Amino acid sequence: MRRYVHPETEDIELPGVLFALSDATRLGMVVELSDGVERTAGQLGGEIAKSTVAHHLKVLREAGVIFVRSEGPRCYNSLRTEDLEARFPGLLGHVLPLAEREYR
Amino acid sequence: MRRYVHPETEDIELPGVLFALSDATRLGMVVELSDGVERTAGQLGGEIAKSTVAHHLKVLREAGVIFVRSEGPRCYNSLRTEDLEARFPGLLGHVLPLAEREYR
Repeated sequence: MRRYVHPETEDIELPGVLFALSDATRLGMVVELSDGVERTAGQLGGEIAKSTVAHHLKVLREAGVIFVRSEGPRCYNSLRTEDLEARFPGLLGHVLPLAEREYR
Repeated sequence: MRRYVHPETEDIELPGVLFALSDATRLGMVVELSDGVERTAGQLGGEIAKSTVAHHLKVLREAGVIFVRSEGPRCYNSLRTEDLEARFPGLLGHVLPLAEREYR
């Protein structure tokens, strides 16, 4: 079982979160996860190459935007909605509808 | 007199704006310009190396975040508040207070 490193909530930084969101593919993944349901890389990536999906998920995880949970052979990705809200109130709630308009 | 290229309002893209804002120095510049007063690179850069300031201002300009106006030997930078509001309503209004907390 792989273990993933995640920043503590208080270590999530605004530039890092904005960078993680500064890509149409990653914005689309975050919009998809915003319903609160966790998804595998395969479910999130669609037809994108696996290595590219893995890269995007790593950027999102390291910035503190998503949480990755191992369960047996699978990894499930979820949005750190509460942690982001605690750190940057209102940010996701305002960026995601703008992103949803264009990248869902 | 130098002429600067700026994207049209409708060509400003969300990932580009988020990327432009994904750096503490650029966030600080944008927070400083958010009072609506235009400033030279020297005023914005403080003690940062001139070439670094020029790079950051170029990223902000190309993303459509700032407007650069030449006047004689000087260039004045201003925030494209209205254009950004037209394109992404509420975005700056929600990101800037979060940035101001940390990068002013």
